[in-house]
Amino acid sequence: MESWNKARKVPEKTLLGPGPTPVDGRILRAMAEPTLGHLDRDFVAIMDETRDLLRMVFQTKNDLTVAMSGTGSAGMETACVNMIERGDKVIICSHGVFGTRMQDVAGRCGAEVVEVNAPMGRPVDPGDVRRAIAANPDAKLLGIVHAETSTGVLQPLDEIVSIVHGAGMFMVVDAVTSLGGMDVPVDRLGFDMVYSGSQKCLACPPGLAPVTVSPRAVEYIKNRKSKIQSWYLDLTMIMRYWGQERFYHHTAPVNMIYGLNEGLRMIAEEGLENRFVRHRRNAEALWAGLEALGLELLVEKAFRLPSLTSVKIPEGIDEAVVRGRLMDEYSIEIGSGLGDLKGKIIRIGLMGSGSNRKNIVLFLSALGRILSDQGFRTDLDTAQEAVHKVLARD
Amino acid sequence: MESWNKARKVPEKTLLGPGPTPVDGRILRAMAEPTLGHLDRDFVAIMDETRDLLRMVFQTKNDLTVAMSGTGSAGMETACVNMIERGDKVIICSHGVFGTRMQDVAGRCGAEVVEVNAPMGRPVDPGDVRRAIAANPDAKLLGIVHAETSTGVLQPLDEIVSIVHGAGMFMVVDAVTSLGGMDVPVDRLGFDMVYSGSQKCLACPPGLAPVTVSPRAVEYIKNRKSKIQSWYLDLTMIMRYWGQERFYHHTAPVNMIYGLNEGLRMIAEEGLENRFVRHRRNAEALWAGLEALGLELLVEKAFRLPSLTSVKIPEGIDEAVVRGRLMDEYSIEIGSGLGDLKGKIIRIGLMGSGSNRKNIVLFLSALGRILSDQGFRTDLDTAQEAVHKVLARD
Repeated sequence: MESWNKARKVPEKTLLGPGPTPVDGRILRAMAEPTLGHLDRDFVAIMDETRDLLRMVFQTKNDLTVAMSGTGSAGMETACVNMIERGDKVIICSHGVFGTRMQDVAGRCGAEVVEVNAPMGRPVDPGDVRRAIAANPDAKLLGIVHAETSTGVLQPLDEIVSIVHGAGMFMVVDAVTSLGGMDVPVDRLGFDMVYSGSQKCLACPPGLAPVTVSPRAVEYIKNRKSKIQSWYLDLTMIMRYWGQERFYHHTAPVNMIYGLNEGLRMIAEEGLENRFVRHRRNAEALWAGLEALGLELLVEKAFRLPSLTSVKIPEGIDEAVVRGRLMDEYSIEIGSGLGDLKGKIIRIGLMGSGSNRKNIVLFLSALGRILSDQGFRTDLDTAQEAVHKVLARD
Repeated sequence: MESWNKARKVPEKTLLGPGPTPVDGRILRAMAEPTLGHLDRDFVAIMDETRDLLRMVFQTKNDLTVAMSGTGSAGMETACVNMIERGDKVIICSHGVFGTRMQDVAGRCGAEVVEVNAPMGRPVDPGDVRRAIAANPDAKLLGIVHAETSTGVLQPLDEIVSIVHGAGMFMVVDAVTSLGGMDVPVDRLGFDMVYSGSQKCLACPPGLAPVTVSPRAVEYIKNRKSKIQSWYLDLTMIMRYWGQERFYHHTAPVNMIYGLNEGLRMIAEEGLENRFVRHRRNAEALWAGLEALGLELLVEKAFRLPSLTSVKIPEGIDEAVVRGRLMDEYSIEIGSGLGDLKGKIIRIGLMGSGSNRKNIVLFLSALGRILSDQGFRTDLDTAQEAVHKVLARD
């Protein structure tokens, strides 16, 4: 109980799990700048710039683009509480834990939820979406996860968004593990509400949920029949705080905004397209290395996320031992399987500043050694050669 | 649009408004420590210590004591969504903007809200509470603001809690502007749900909402008939994350928790009782100084908060000019009036590390000068003498 009198030392670890991801010292130092008032003009200028930078990563001109004062799950809840009224019928797709979570959240908003599900490790089939919409012409919106963090599946959205908009419905997209690491073309595809989290490819500490809303969805929200069930996440008020009016709603998490601002500046400096190429190239190098170690990936190549890779655990290997030894001996964090995949896969994130050659090489060396100790024969030379071959490509 | 290429410099300001309050460099530096995973054992140890320290400031043994991943308003919403089911009748008191907000939030949870209101600047009358309960014997809980941030009124709670518990109801208390700066005796008075914010007397950056829940309220929440309407704030899941089980719910705002932990350590070092005495002494010094300047306080002495003081603006003085000059010439932030008190009062916070002699003397000097310039005669010598007299007392 008296432990708070001991000095605290937070050890530095290599975060290669599903998030949080490594946070650059520039961002950490920005968070330690002096706290300003939430209505202070200097802070308001930082908010304005942060909003502009968020528009850049969301590739949107949406006026309503903000960072909600909560984590990615608060972003999901923001989408649901603002877009759903009690009794509405909605279609929510699931191809993993986070799609299933969205079905739960939508249900708590009083929606009648029509589920379109795919097995974990596969994307949702656009044909299933088409059939669900045909069977439920009164459905108002479709919600879907772009980058399923529980499996590493990238959900193609081009065809689905055109089906959804063809039916006059709204399209809600979970971009928690894609934003800032791969293409999330909000305006090009016309998504109506997209949310993310600060601690994935944006590579900031967890605690903020970037959200962008199309003008059509803003009109809808402003003209809802019923009050939004969450006061805290009510976008009709929050848009007045982030907008010109600076209407007091709640006290923004000032220092977290400093951190997000700095992280977004780093993305602007790198260039969004360069960042996508870096994530993709490093993911391919990791995949090549893992396969050269004799491991099998959960997701077929066409649907793999550049940010997060799921690896099947070979017969006879205890994944808890693998993760434990990675942490104990190398201070490397990776993720375990969730839901039906618990014990069957490990998840490796290469996001933000964590997506680099050093981490790939370190991780494969450590993993290969641990697997060998457990009797799974690996050849590290071949694995490293496979990595370098990908990274040496033009 | 290219402004993110310019180096940012966050200026240091003296935060003497209603919050955020000055944040000590120790806390800011703690926030810049390396980000850990939200299930990492070293982070879990920091969470455990933070929970113990929160119990210390809440003066409670409540098992369910956590920091919610949002600001103080998320704390208010946590109390409402967990304790209220649709159709419940609840009594919510208001003696200012935050009580009125609680009425709004409770209504959004589907409650039938019985209002017990008092004029801004006065506390709620226990007689009114008694009458409301007698008229509504089916009411399930009473919600009330302990420290009304919009007025600076301290609401006495001893009599009200005994009426509420006598009727078998739950008692929900908003301690946003009291926790850590004055007595909030959770266990002694048996409050069932108390929430606060990190950026007031706890003197950390905004972004976390400490919450504590009595065993009786936990039993109620576990046995509710309906699902909690907010997934993000669902305490039945959050208690499993903060508890032994470490069940994954959402990704905690890791670096914010570092900051809160450090702020709570500073409170443990100072001692809770010493901190209360410091806040009270400095508030009395400020009051003496303000009155010596010829100003009138909004709240009568028996009901004044030690953390926040509301001052009436003299006839002929433009409060926006006063606040503007304090910021422009002295980098001092104070608060304006809210709601019906807009333009009629200014609010001065002395909270956490901001509650000190230096800030009092600086503020009175600056204010006196600005008022004199506007034709309101002040005598700074008398004011400073009054301050020093209070501070020199045993």
